Amino acid sequence: VGYYKAVIAYDGTDFLGFQIQAQGRTVQGTLEAALHTLAKQPVRVTGAGRTDTGVHATGQVIGWQLPWQHSTVDLLKAFNANLPQDVAVKELTTTEPGFHPRFSAVSRQYRYTILNQPIRNVLKRQYTALVTQPLSIEAMQAASRCLLGEHDFAAFGRPPQGDNSVRTVTQAVWSRQGPEIYFDITANAFLYRMVRNIVGALIQVGQVSLPQEAMEEVMLSGKRSNAIAPAPPNGLCLIKVNY
Amino acid sequence: VGYYKAVIAYDGTDFLGFQIQAQGRTVQGTLEAALHTLAKQPVRVTGAGRTDTGVHATGQVIGWQLPWQHSTVDLLKAFNANLPQDVAVKELTTTEPGFHPRFSAVSRQYRYTILNQPIRNVLKRQYTALVTQPLSIEAMQAASRCLLGEHDFAAFGRPPQGDNSVRTVTQAVWSRQGPEIYFDITANAFLYRMVRNIVGALIQVGQVSLPQEAMEEVMLSGKRSNAIAPAPPNGLCLIKVNY
Repeated sequence: VGYYKAVIAYDGTDFLGFQIQAQGRTVQGTLEAALHTLAKQPVRVTGAGRTDTGVHATGQVIGWQLPWQHSTVDLLKAFNANLPQDVAVKELTTTEPGFHPRFSAVSRQYRYTILNQPIRNVLKRQYTALVTQPLSIEAMQAASRCLLGEHDFAAFGRPPQGDNSVRTVTQAVWSRQGPEIYFDITANAFLYRMVRNIVGALIQVGQVSLPQEAMEEVMLSGKRSNAIAPAPPNGLCLIKVNY
Repeated sequence: VGYYKAVIAYDGTDFLGFQIQAQGRTVQGTLEAALHTLAKQPVRVTGAGRTDTGVHATGQVIGWQLPWQHSTVDLLKAFNANLPQDVAVKELTTTEPGFHPRFSAVSRQYRYTILNQPIRNVLKRQYTALVTQPLSIEAMQAASRCLLGEHDFAAFGRPPQGDNSVRTVTQAVWSRQGPEIYFDITANAFLYRMVRNIVGALIQVGQVSLPQEAMEEVMLSGKRSNAIAPAPPNGLCLIKVNY
């Protein structure tokens, strides 16, 4: 038996998220179909993060086992050759039987990209969220500080069944390059839609329609606010999983 | 009567090129439909360059007339609001009746983008051409020098009916930024598929499967070579039209 892990990238535009479903095109389903072809038998793939419909990844990590040992160089090539153009395997290695992409991970890093200009950019529309009003990244950075550390993030997302909503955020940094604004956030793990809900609130702070102090109040309230819409999925990308 | 010109951008992925056709989705057809809605009568749009199926633009120039004078600020907004997400009007001004986007133009600049790495980039696949073998941009630059000046480019494309194939190239520069390689080429005008055929030949030079000197020999032969495939359309973008 061979145990494998891989770093993969995908364009989330045409996927109903990572996790396999009874119907619809998913990343996990696409990966399992490619491995099924290669292994000539069903293969179960596990991923580090269950990205949502329309969310991208450049550093998702997956694991699987195969009945035989394979050359990792050959397997990388064959895997990519059997995947569609919107999924790619970037690195592939063998691993120990005890490795689990999700449970072994110590943290995940996501990047949210906002395009802050008056008119849409047709070549970047699938990978950025357009905000046409000017944004103050200073205000957004100030409001992000309260996120750092261990908190109950119930106000920004819901946990998987049977789990609580306490998470530890270790990075929450805004930066700007020309009209593009990036939000890099790292945590031990994320709740469902947590990054998009946080960014949705912070965009309101950046537009000065929500005061900086409100961010911490929302977080401490522990309740989802109907006034805060999640930021669109196409700006979000899973960058890296740390083990 | 009001005469207008605009700088527009489009993602060529889902268009059968710029020029309107009896069937199929074209950029010109999409622009004319939007202006028809606004003007409540048919409007004919002319463009500076007839980009091919799958070719992008960030600096295409178009012109049209409307029965009334409009505020250019309002017209820009209304035009964008009536266009799909893969076309955008970046700038819009009034112009003289004698202005013609194609005939008034003195030169056009195209950029061809190659992604030179072993594995595809899923987020850039629609806007770059992947070349997995290493490329020597020094060899490609050396082989590009013969293009500069006035030449018969019949070996690299065909002219419109009734026209000759002599064109003047004023810029042909290769540059590299990480895994991306750019070819910037400016000419008074281009033949049909001229940039893609030139890049196709230069990629062979960069892979050392065609000697540097062969580029000039091919050009001087005046004959299309079956050994040279045009580079794929998705790497090509019309950057700027000069007047």
